[in-house]
Amino acid sequence: MRFGCSLQGDPDRRVSRVGTLERADIDSVSFLANPRYKRFLATTEAGAVVLDPALAGDCPTAALLTKNPYATYARIATLLYPVPAQVPGIHASAVVDESAVIDPDAYVGPMAVIEAGVHIGPRVVVGPGCVVMRDCRIGADSRLVARVTLCADVKLGERVLLHPGVVIGADGFGLAPDKGHWVKVPQVGGVDIGSDVEVGANTTIDRGAIENTTIGDGVKLDNQIQIGHNVRIGAHTIVAGCTGISGSAVIGERCMIGGQVGIAGHLSICDDTVVIGQSLVASSILKRGTYSSAFTVDEATRFRKNAARFAQLDEFVREVRRARRDPGEPSAT
Amino acid sequence: MRFGCSLQGDPDRRVSRVGTLERADIDSVSFLANPRYKRFLATTEAGAVVLDPALAGDCPTAALLTKNPYATYARIATLLYPVPAQVPGIHASAVVDESAVIDPDAYVGPMAVIEAGVHIGPRVVVGPGCVVMRDCRIGADSRLVARVTLCADVKLGERVLLHPGVVIGADGFGLAPDKGHWVKVPQVGGVDIGSDVEVGANTTIDRGAIENTTIGDGVKLDNQIQIGHNVRIGAHTIVAGCTGISGSAVIGERCMIGGQVGIAGHLSICDDTVVIGQSLVASSILKRGTYSSAFTVDEATRFRKNAARFAQLDEFVREVRRARRDPGEPSAT
Amino acid sequence: MRFGCSLQGDPDRRVSRVGTLERADIDSVSFLANPRYKRFLATTEAGAVVLDPALAGDCPTAALLTKNPYATYARIATLLYPVPAQVPGIHASAVVDESAVIDPDAYVGPMAVIEAGVHIGPRVVVGPGCVVMRDCRIGADSRLVARVTLCADVKLGERVLLHPGVVIGADGFGLAPDKGHWVKVPQVGGVDIGSDVEVGANTTIDRGAIENTTIGDGVKLDNQIQIGHNVRIGAHTIVAGCTGISGSAVIGERCMIGGQVGIAGHLSICDDTVVIGQSLVASSILKRGTYSSAFTVDEATRFRKNAARFAQLDEFVREVRRARRDPGEPSAT
Repeated sequence: MRFGCSLQGDPDRRVSRVGTLERADIDSVSFLANPRYKRFLATTEAGAVVLDPALAGDCPTAALLTKNPYATYARIATLLYPVPAQVPGIHASAVVDESAVIDPDAYVGPMAVIEAGVHIGPRVVVGPGCVVMRDCRIGADSRLVARVTLCADVKLGERVLLHPGVVIGADGFGLAPDKGHWVKVPQVGGVDIGSDVEVGANTTIDRGAIENTTIGDGVKLDNQIQIGHNVRIGAHTIVAGCTGISGSAVIGERCMIGGQVGIAGHLSICDDTVVIGQSLVASSILKRGTYSSAFTVDEATRFRKNAARFAQLDEFVREVRRARRDPGEPSAT
Repeated sequence: MRFGCSLQGDPDRRVSRVGTLERADIDSVSFLANPRYKRFLATTEAGAVVLDPALAGDCPTAALLTKNPYATYARIATLLYPVPAQVPGIHASAVVDESAVIDPDAYVGPMAVIEAGVHIGPRVVVGPGCVVMRDCRIGADSRLVARVTLCADVKLGERVLLHPGVVIGADGFGLAPDKGHWVKVPQVGGVDIGSDVEVGANTTIDRGAIENTTIGDGVKLDNQIQIGHNVRIGAHTIVAGCTGISGSAVIGERCMIGGQVGIAGHLSICDDTVVIGQSLVASSILKRGTYSSAFTVDEATRFRKNAARFAQLDEFVREVRRARRDPGEPSAT
Repeated sequence: MRFGCSLQGDPDRRVSRVGTLERADIDSVSFLANPRYKRFLATTEAGAVVLDPALAGDCPTAALLTKNPYATYARIATLLYPVPAQVPGIHASAVVDESAVIDPDAYVGPMAVIEAGVHIGPRVVVGPGCVVMRDCRIGADSRLVARVTLCADVKLGERVLLHPGVVIGADGFGLAPDKGHWVKVPQVGGVDIGSDVEVGANTTIDRGAIENTTIGDGVKLDNQIQIGHNVRIGAHTIVAGCTGISGSAVIGERCMIGGQVGIAGHLSICDDTVVIGQSLVASSILKRGTYSSAFTVDEATRFRKNAARFAQLDEFVREVRRARRDPGEPSAT
């Protein structure tokens, strides 16, 4: 079969759209990957379900069996919902510098601004309201959905997908203290984005201070992430929303960084590291594994009592150990 | 009286603007709602003060007495500062697809882009630089202040207010791991925003993966919030700035979620829940109440000593309990 | 010498660009400020290095000796990389209200929108896609890089630098609860930004509810920061990325606020305070110092064991103290 899965049930069943197990109809294909949705399998009315062979016996309809149902579903859905083709050309309202080189198969949308020295590759889509500043290069088949800003000297690989509000190449936060003031440090590096990178809405990636900020091939960044100057992120690493990565941090390949994580500057994180959402990485991680500093909510009154005890924890530990050495000492209250 | 409050003092007193208790003059109306500002009441020079009847005796000037002074002040200020009316029409610089249906009483500002199939209702204001992509629908009296992006298939109710930089309907963060790479999962759902919703500057709301992301009537979202795909937020819930809500989370009605809160995916939070700022909700909340996991600052040296003890807390508890069972065991240091 | 440093080595050495110690060549000037990069000094091929006189003996090439090498480097780099001059004028595609006053030496870029009553000072650059709403004032030599939004009544001092995606003057989050709904409180104050302020990409600064939000001279804000209504930030304070500052907080001068910090509303922080990244300030700080509530990651299994103990810490402390008063009591497990 085309997606490397085996079929159970009617081979002539046709589907034209996707649906959740709970609400799909006979014309829809669904999938089961997250076990918490298994409860909807028995009653699904989907035309077909992509799922693990181990669950084939529980599926009341046609089944597409594969060890990786989520990825298989993704590929089927990509066929069912192709990205609408864009007729090439430059919209009459766009402002394009005469020195920019734009592939004849590329599209530049309304209100876009393309500055001097820019190169735009084949089949690139620059959506409405984007600003591409001088000397940027955009590789083939990349798509700037809308209102994306590339500051000067940003390089994108191929098939890069940038969502609205993304800003790549703004100045890093480089400031030298001097007699109670801050002196701006020129940010003269660029940004190199690999191929097959996706960047979520309103995420920001700063240009390098001297050398380039670099994002590896296949990296996926969610919305509202902040990436400081000279950060390097290895290939196929994934970062969830609202995470902040400080300047000169080096993150390995295939890492999974949760949402709202803070990563301090000038440290390194090794390949295949997992960081739980809302954690803080303040020093290098040299050993692969799963790391956390994220407390989860408790009823607030109870949490505050425990937090008040935490605020005296060092004294308490000392008190307990003193008491064991000298059982006659009076206890605090 | 018009605002349902009773007047104490000169019935002919007129005010034309608002002011704080501390700095208002005789032409200004002020209010007292937060008790921490009560210290400015005795010396206020405001022409009138909106406040609770219990404080009427302390007010040195005309008083508007009401059990809800902040809401009453809000209504008075709305009358004193009406939103400037916008002459309907489409600015000459806007790019509007010929298939878009725009009410003759709506306004489309300079540099706006309106794509195919869009419906814009009466008295809607689409401010400068907004991008409204294909098949969006915007209900009556809604206002996109400036530089707002609506991706395809976003529906807004009536009286929706979207501040600059808002992005609604960008792709959710749907990625399936497959042999060390990430396969993009098409995000084919839309976004449904109810009526009377306000969304703060640079907040992002992702489109659904299959079904729609939905924001209920009267929901108020502050700035820089990230809302993942398929999140559902119940009516009249309020969320403070910088909070991140992961995919498929379901949040009840009338909740109050603080700033910088993290909410994990695929969980539910019941109606009327309060979450303190900077907390993490990692599993469902089934019982209404106030929840927290937010530690507040201490002097850093002291905090770090306590945090170092925390990092050995499990061992310490075990040690103490062992010692009580076997008092002869030597103590650690 | 021009930068107040003394030269060691060849006085005719010329440099034309900057480089890191590790990769600079003979035509580049480098610097050593962060001790963690000292290991690259012995083998650097830089044409000259800016560094502390104490390290002069370790420098294998020409040295520029100064007690503040980072600030001196910043000044040299500023000379080597001048901001490209902008030919004054108004781009043909910009939409400028006839009542706006624009200095003849200012520049307004493509797709910019300038509303009624705006004043723009000499040598100001309003980059592509910016929106400057009614009655804003922009002081001399300020630069809005691209896609910046200034809502009505925002005042900028001189030499202000605003990066792409910045939104200044959106409505604050003012809402009054009333019978299960939220009543919008009109936000009628403005925003005053001092001189020499820099604001990072996608940062938002809300307008005041009644009085103005104010940012002092020389304040430097990183990317993705949220600043609520009526916040006041004192001169020369610096704030790192993703930090959120709630309404009516008052922050002193020369403070250093880390990234992802949360600052609650209606409090004050004294001058010269340092707050470590990811901390929460929930009440006023009256004594200068360094403050933290930031836990750093541990191996996740170990962290969770400790967090589980934390969730019972109050009970544990009580248990231990009871046991000391009554040694016969049985221990929990």
